[in-house]
Formats: sequence, C-alpha cells, structure tokens
Amino acid sequence: MTPLEAAIAAVRPLDEAAMAAARAHLERLTKPPGSLGRLEELAIMLAGITGDPAPALEPRRIVVVAADHGIAQRGVSAYPPEVTGQMVDNFLAGGAAINALAGWVGASVVVVDAGVASPPPRTRAGAGTNARLVWSPIRPGTSDISVGPAMTRQEAMRSVELGLRVAADMVREGTGVMGMGEMGIGNTTSASAITAAMTGRPVRSVTGRGTGLDDHHLARKVDLIERAITVNRPDAADPIGVLAGIGGFEIGTLVGLILGSAAARVPVVLDGFITGSAALIAAELCPPIRRRLIAAHRSPEPGHAVILQRLGLSPILDLELRLGEGTGAALAIGLLDAACRIRDEMATFASASVSDRSVGIVC
Amino acid sequence: MTPLEAAIAAVRPLDEAAMAAARAHLERLTKPPGSLGRLEELAIMLAGITGDPAPALEPRRIVVVAADHGIAQRGVSAYPPEVTGQMVDNFLAGGAAINALAGWVGASVVVVDAGVASPPPRTRAGAGTNARLVWSPIRPGTSDISVGPAMTRQEAMRSVELGLRVAADMVREGTGVMGMGEMGIGNTTSASAITAAMTGRPVRSVTGRGTGLDDHHLARKVDLIERAITVNRPDAADPIGVLAGIGGFEIGTLVGLILGSAAARVPVVLDGFITGSAALIAAELCPPIRRRLIAAHRSPEPGHAVILQRLGLSPILDLELRLGEGTGAALAIGLLDAACRIRDEMATFASASVSDRSVGIVC
Repeated sequence: MTPLEAAIAAVRPLDEAAMAAARAHLERLTKPPGSLGRLEELAIMLAGITGDPAPALEPRRIVVVAADHGIAQRGVSAYPPEVTGQMVDNFLAGGAAINALAGWVGASVVVVDAGVASPPPRTRAGAGTNARLVWSPIRPGTSDISVGPAMTRQEAMRSVELGLRVAADMVREGTGVMGMGEMGIGNTTSASAITAAMTGRPVRSVTGRGTGLDDHHLARKVDLIERAITVNRPDAADPIGVLAGIGGFEIGTLVGLILGSAAARVPVVLDGFITGSAALIAAELCPPIRRRLIAAHRSPEPGHAVILQRLGLSPILDLELRLGEGTGAALAIGLLDAACRIRDEMATFASASVSDRSVGIVC
Repeated sequence: MTPLEAAIAAVRPLDEAAMAAARAHLERLTKPPGSLGRLEELAIMLAGITGDPAPALEPRRIVVVAADHGIAQRGVSAYPPEVTGQMVDNFLAGGAAINALAGWVGASVVVVDAGVASPPPRTRAGAGTNARLVWSPIRPGTSDISVGPAMTRQEAMRSVELGLRVAADMVREGTGVMGMGEMGIGNTTSASAITAAMTGRPVRSVTGRGTGLDDHHLARKVDLIERAITVNRPDAADPIGVLAGIGGFEIGTLVGLILGSAAARVPVVLDGFITGSAALIAAELCPPIRRRLIAAHRSPEPGHAVILQRLGLSPILDLELRLGEGTGAALAIGLLDAACRIRDEMATFASASVSDRSVGIVC
C-alpha cells in the first residue's frame, strides 16, 4: 500500500456518538436550543471529526504551501513570479497577513516550500516571528500548462506524499486544528483549470481576476486555461492525472495535507479557491473526507462557489477575502475557538437555576 | 438643551481624512490592494468613526441591557418571564454565552438593569466573572402593549437618558469599542412592533419565532403585535412616541447608548434584531449615525433583514445566531480586532522587499 492508499483507507465516517454527546451537552446550556446557530453546528462537527465530544483546538497550525507556476511567465497574475519567493521570506520574517492573523488566533505558521523558483529563503524565522520553514521543493516551479503537463505523474505523487509527511509531522506534534494556506503567483490559473476539469463547468464561469487582472488579461487567462485543458486532456476520474496535467506543487501538497489530516481525525480548515481546488482532488480520491472539511469562507473568485457547492460545504465567513495564505482559515479558526468557548464555559440551566422552556412550546 | 438633544447635536460625519490615511496605509501592506475585503473596509470605517487612522479597540465593553415586558405574560416567548432576572444573575455569575464570548474577545460585560421585574440580582460579580452591574431600573417591566402603552413618554425619555449616562461612563473609562447586547423575555415582540411601525412593513413580515415559538404561538404573537399597533398608533415621525407606545426599557436604553457612543466617536457594534430596533429609533432621531453603526450579524428573525436594509448596513457575519445578549457583537468585535492586527502588524512592500504590481495591470 502506498502512503496515499494508506491515508485514504484510514479515513473514517464522522463519530456519531461523539456528535450526539456534544449536541446533548449544548442543549443543557443556558440558551435557547440551537440559538447559536452555526457555532453550535461547528462544535458538533468538531466532535464528529475528532471522535471527542469536546476536543481542544490546541495547538493550532496554519500550513502555507508555496510553489511557482510556469504559466506565471505569461502574465496571468497582476504580480511578477518572483513575488512567490519574496512572500515566503515575508512569511518567515513575520510580516505577511497570515502572520498577523495566525497571531490573532494563537496559531503558528508552517511554511512549506514545495517548489518555489527563487533561491531558498534568505530569512530564517527569528524570535519575533511565529513561522518556520519546511524546505522540500519537488522542483523549482511547474512547467507551463498551456503547452504541456505541469509535472510528471511521479512528481504529482511526490507532492501529495510531501503533504502526507507534513500532516504526519503535525499529528506527531499533537496539532488540534490545521488551517490550509498557499502562496504561488499564477495559482488561481491552475485552480480554475482544475475546477473546470473536475466539475465540467466552462472555463469562463470558473475563472476570475485573481489578485487583480483587468478585462484584457482576464480574457487571456481564460484562453490560456482553455489551451491547458486542450493540451493536457484532464480526466476527472483520474485526479492524480489532473494534478499532473494542470495542477501545481502546492496544490498537490495540499491534497496530501488534507487527506493526511483527515485520516488522523485532525480538523482541516480550508481557506479559499486554491485550497478548495486541492479539496476537489482529495474528495475525488476519497469521497468520505467531504464531511470532515470545514470551509472557512467564500472567495469572490467565481470558481470557489462552484467548488463549495460540489463539495456540499457551507462557508463560515463571507468577507470578500481574496488573499489566500490561509488568511480565511485563520479567521475561521477564531470562530471555531469561540464555539469551543461556548461549549466549555457556559453554565447549564440546572447549575445556573434558570427556568427551561415552557411546556407545549416547541423549537 | 436636553441630554438627548446634546448627543444628537454632537454626532459628526465620518472623518474623511482619517479614512484616507487608513486606506493609504493598507495599500502599502504586502497584499494585493483590497484583497482582505471587508476586513479592510472595517479598518477604514473605524478610522472614520474615531477620527484616528489607527485606533486601538481597547478596552472593550459589551453592554447588556435587561428589562421585562408586560406582554410576556401572554405567552409570546418560549420561556417564562422570570428568565430575564435569572439570566441577569447568570451574566453576573459568568455563566452565560455572552460571558464566554466576551472572554474570547477580551471584553468586559456591563449588565444594565433598566427594568427587570424580579428582585435585584442575588449574585454579585465575583472574581471568576468578567461582568458588573449597573442597577437603574425605570420600572419593574413595561405594561402590556396589547392593551395600552408600554410606558409613559417621560419613562421613555428616562430610559434613553439612562443609556446616555451609561455611554458617558464608558467613554470616561476610555472604552475603545462598545458592543450592544440585551436580555428581555418577550422583547422580539416589541422589536417586531417597532420595526413594523418604523418601516411600514406588515407585522407578519417582520415577526419571527424568537427563542422558538411553534406556528400556533407565532400566529398569536402576530395578532398581539397588530393589536398593540392598533391600540397605540405609533407614528414613525415621533420615535420617542414609538418607544413609549410599543417599546421596552432596554430598547430605550440602547437608543441612548447608541447615540451617546456615536456622539463620543466610540465605535458601536450592534448585535441582532433587538439592538437593531433600537438603532432604527436612534437613526430616526439622528440620521447621520447610520454611517457610524457596525452591524455584527444577520439574525434569522425576518425583521432584522428589514432593519439592516433600512439602515443601509451590511452585516459582518451570517451564522444564524438568534440568542441576543450581544453574542453576535462580541464575535464581530473579534473580527474588528483581526482587522486591526492586519493594519498594525503587516510589513509594507518596501520594508519586506516584495515587488509591487506589474505595470499596466489594474485592480
């Protein structure tokens, strides 16, 4: 059995007993039943994922996987390709949005270099930062998907296995919740191609402006994605083939991270469009993981709503976030933390001597 | 000039210069412009409200105003009326949802007894709680609005002035952000009546199940609200008259809190339907405050969407919260805090040596 096959085989259905225990506990607290809406649903879901009626969400990790994309040379992003490596430096120096939001939620940031084109980071995480680096590039950036495959099938498997290894390391550290993040100039192009390939939707309907393209460059991006699909002929029934043809090293690593965390019953919080495209591939490899995924937010990228619908996920937040890096995941982990506070800190009707509902009135 | 007139006169337009400075700062940070969506909008709004490009949100207060409603004797709630006082005890003992969520966001809870029917709280806030009490009841509960006015006009003014006084106390303490909360068995009935009166919408379209009514009791609630409007003839052009006829002591106090905080440039975070109904009255008294209000979330109560639309507010969260107490406000303050972290902790493109956008590509 390969590491991927082992992870897929280890994914279990949600623990119904733990969910029932969590639900029963929430009903005893001094509030109308269900009146905290999705916070209560999330507390119950965390029980089902972990098998523990009241799991601690500690320690918290945001894993930001970075890689470069050959297609970025064709101007599909508002930023030049060297920004991927520069932002890895910025993560490690603690100056990026994800450092601020991870700090807000008490998470540490694990930056995975899965294939950044520029030289290894100059900056090492210092005392003032909350980030560290896993340096394990598959190759310094994918090949241009508009003229051929992004990577070999073997490289695709290696990227997934890198994610499985990082997940295993996180599990060994006792991680209580894992947020998924990414950085890669040009990676919305890959995510749109994957979304079109996996859902059958027209490219135009799942392609957006990324970090800020104008109409002209958006039309060019759509055209390049259509060419990538024509050239690589991705087949939705072969998700590793899709990854090899039109994916990215960070996306493959995220597939492994999602599967490895799900197999180990660690709650996985997706971020936006890119991590969603990885989840599409992971769910095709292992359909039961869908119920273990927590969608942090809905991105304005049009393909993201398509992904969420396909996976049956309802996002926690809708704040027009389109940054990536795991920023939405960090915010959503904050709300999961709030749900756990409710679960752990409230009095019950009995302990607080508060009258429960009148007879004859149902919720 | 009455205290109310003084507060209304003190409300200023948003500070455009502070907003421009905040916007310019956010544009220099290492992320695509505007890519943190509503978090960035909120950071800019906080600058406009306070007149400071980077206001601290410290200290934080959730003010929970509690009062009873004569109409609660008619079974418009799933809970018996004595729960209002029991929950005040619970707040002060630290066992309610708002204590947990205020703790989550580092806020203290100020419980205002504006007219609770039961005896003064037995519990005093102890070492383990984050709450304290302002005991200043107008009267132990309003009169039954289905047969006459909730309160006299003088009592309505006294409730608003109580809110102005509490706001002034909070301002003296240097409060950086104030979340609005409430507790009052039966108060969705009053809020629905106010919403119908102030917007002209049919009662049925702005009345919901509150803490959990069945169809039979919901129909009865609608009928009682229609009677209250027939009996009291509220006139939207006379908001204090609306408050006196069909309001509540906690709603009047919230009107004063909202106006007093807005006048002192303290950011006000509304909670759900009840605080929204107070905001409707406050905005009728002082239309410019609308731009100073932050809507925490959208409640499933049908009247709340009507209020948000009328006030031109877009809620931060949509989590099907229907508890009140300021729980949504506390969660939203957490996201405001995240917005401030972004503003204060990120590197700039220049400081992090990250390349800015390519020429010729616009956002």
